[in-house]
Amino acid sequence: MTTTAPGLRLTDDDLHGSLGDPIMRSMDFLNEVMDRFPDAISFAPGAPNPVFLDDFDPVPHLDRYLAHLREQRGLTAAQARRLLFQYGPSKGLIGDLIAAALRTDSGIDVPAEAVVVTVGCQEAMVLALRALCASADDVLAVVNPCYVGIVGAARMLGIDVVPVRETDDGVDLDDLRRTCHEVRATGRRVRALYVAPDFANPSGTVLDLAARHALLTLADLEDLLVLEDSPYGFTAPAGDRLPCLKALEHGERVLFLGTFAKVCVPGARVGYVVADQVVTGRGGLLADRLASLKSMVTVNTSPICQGIVGGMLLGNGGSLATIADAKAVLYQRNLRLLVENLKTALPAGVRWRAPRGGFFLRLRLPVPADDALLEVSARQYGVLWTPMRHFCLDDSGDHQIRLSCSYLTPEEITEGVRRLGEFLRAATDR
Amino acid sequence: MTTTAPGLRLTDDDLHGSLGDPIMRSMDFLNEVMDRFPDAISFAPGAPNPVFLDDFDPVPHLDRYLAHLREQRGLTAAQARRLLFQYGPSKGLIGDLIAAALRTDSGIDVPAEAVVVTVGCQEAMVLALRALCASADDVLAVVNPCYVGIVGAARMLGIDVVPVRETDDGVDLDDLRRTCHEVRATGRRVRALYVAPDFANPSGTVLDLAARHALLTLADLEDLLVLEDSPYGFTAPAGDRLPCLKALEHGERVLFLGTFAKVCVPGARVGYVVADQVVTGRGGLLADRLASLKSMVTVNTSPICQGIVGGMLLGNGGSLATIADAKAVLYQRNLRLLVENLKTALPAGVRWRAPRGGFFLRLRLPVPADDALLEVSARQYGVLWTPMRHFCLDDSGDHQIRLSCSYLTPEEITEGVRRLGEFLRAATDR
Repeated sequence: MTTTAPGLRLTDDDLHGSLGDPIMRSMDFLNEVMDRFPDAISFAPGAPNPVFLDDFDPVPHLDRYLAHLREQRGLTAAQARRLLFQYGPSKGLIGDLIAAALRTDSGIDVPAEAVVVTVGCQEAMVLALRALCASADDVLAVVNPCYVGIVGAARMLGIDVVPVRETDDGVDLDDLRRTCHEVRATGRRVRALYVAPDFANPSGTVLDLAARHALLTLADLEDLLVLEDSPYGFTAPAGDRLPCLKALEHGERVLFLGTFAKVCVPGARVGYVVADQVVTGRGGLLADRLASLKSMVTVNTSPICQGIVGGMLLGNGGSLATIADAKAVLYQRNLRLLVENLKTALPAGVRWRAPRGGFFLRLRLPVPADDALLEVSARQYGVLWTPMRHFCLDDSGDHQIRLSCSYLTPEEITEGVRRLGEFLRAATDR
Repeated sequence: MTTTAPGLRLTDDDLHGSLGDPIMRSMDFLNEVMDRFPDAISFAPGAPNPVFLDDFDPVPHLDRYLAHLREQRGLTAAQARRLLFQYGPSKGLIGDLIAAALRTDSGIDVPAEAVVVTVGCQEAMVLALRALCASADDVLAVVNPCYVGIVGAARMLGIDVVPVRETDDGVDLDDLRRTCHEVRATGRRVRALYVAPDFANPSGTVLDLAARHALLTLADLEDLLVLEDSPYGFTAPAGDRLPCLKALEHGERVLFLGTFAKVCVPGARVGYVVADQVVTGRGGLLADRLASLKSMVTVNTSPICQGIVGGMLLGNGGSLATIADAKAVLYQRNLRLLVENLKTALPAGVRWRAPRGGFFLRLRLPVPADDALLEVSARQYGVLWTPMRHFCLDDSGDHQIRLSCSYLTPEEITEGVRRLGEFLRAATDR
């Protein structure tokens, strides 16, 4: 009798469930639509405007960081180069510069030891979720609709996600409280809330100051941790930026997740998490535990990339305010242009609010905004947008679309809105 | 009645179990010992030799890759820069160059689409494990002792790990078969085996050609996938390198995990995974699924870092053989020096085999080699090494230590072995 070896049969059913999740599938779908209609004007991508990259040169920043290592930290030239080109500590090299910038720019006062440098904000989310959700009983609450990155990270780690309602003024705190109680009644707990208080992706909402204080109080009462993510806070009109939750809190409830992609350069893939919470037991800070976890995810963030970001911080007096403000001017211009054009182009029946900053704007349509409708918009009108349902855990976004204005030129915005208006008049007229 | 908000109490018991795992703890312990004895000669770190970094300059490599994008791929200068500095595809930019180099250097013939560029080899492990281990019934088999990165990744993802015995000739295939059957008898399955066939970390073992073929046959019979990792294969004596499992297989069983840390530069943090397996269902390759997962772990690998590695590949005719061979000369010299010195320095009762390549060498002591003994070695003799138990899932390594010779100068090796001999004579004499 001969033994026949079974051939490899790999099916999607045989791979981890997160891969079949609608969130994962929808990213693939959206990329695929963009690829099929390269000439359409796309209000879909939330990427930084490419004009900022045209004269970007990493070399002077890297050189400035190397000089800093020699002059301020007393390293020899060889030691400085080894620090950038060798493996390095999981916590990162530039926690000191980041902590200083957070103090100056955001009123967040934490020691350098509380900062873990990550591969973009995405890895910061993975580390925070993994550390905090210890068992299947620990669930994550997210505002619905929500940034897909946090839901994807949770799915990948097998962490259950519960949606919390969002109003035009951000997370609905009554619904958050109700959700906490409902989850607790099932013997589980809401361990953390992910929230983007400033011009949230995808809805564009902002939490006002009173709501920020109320959220922190509720976090204390319900024993929640808060994962605060504010990649778009810098786009607020001058003088109009609200303090972050992390700067307002007294109870060590907030982990602050950050990225340098929008203000510095996306291609460096540098982000961070601030976790100054004291851990009793073996002692130390939560940041120490996150750094241990990081050693099992990516070992350490490229010190070369950290050097580029570190050099940018040093070149601007240790603050990012100057760069951020200059970039905010362009995003404010794009947003104003989008809003002005929408005012005349949209048919009756489309409801929306003009945000004061950020990359995103939400339209509520009188018809379902599904992938089929996007296909019509792309094919017949040459304009792309994102169906809000791709960011939702239920059907609450089925009549909504997200527009992003960060990536486009003024001419593209004007022409894009003209096409969008034409498309929407036809679509809502059916 | 007033409501008092409970203060945040964060204890280690309240964080994810992987953080309390001995594997995670041991890395912290070893780093801490190194910090406490900065003047000791350390055979602990497996990092690349720092002399290779002294004249490393990333700029010409980056420039070469930019030129390639303009000249070979027809991009304008602005388009090329945007590709490096903007966000990019999760699969990466340099899969084509990596696939070409694998064909030339390793006889691995896969399309560019089968390559996912990762943040070092560590992220490649995370992606492969996450995709393949779909449920709690899918366990990972590892050779014992084993590289901590793979066990840490499994712990972080909540994947159970089963140890397979290792002989001086690498993984014990009889024990692997027995383990598969035992696991199957409990209603679970060994989904994959992690194996480093060339000068494994930490044991230094090599799988010979016959064993490689036998392992592939067994993988077919037991329906296993194989995660092949070969960071030290390039250190083999000239002409003496064995073909990788991925180059020998016919059954699509092998995922090949790679790193550019040892041959190119650690600070770029660029690795990759080759996954050319076809997935039935939604279609495409396993690499496509891994890229989707990657978008939820780190979004994409820094295109700047990819450009540095891409430029190095282009500058060497699309192959890494020249750079690898030059570096192998130094590692061969270090290893020979370590072996020659050990021959005269070690007391009777210490058993070992001289490996023909790699960074690592294993000593079997007649006494337990625990953290207390390391403390004595560091404090009284000024020499550090790694207790093998830190790499073991059971007590099988309790009398063993790992020596690494990659990081040291010839003088340090000579003096280090002298101290080690003195320490071991005292320790084994007790």
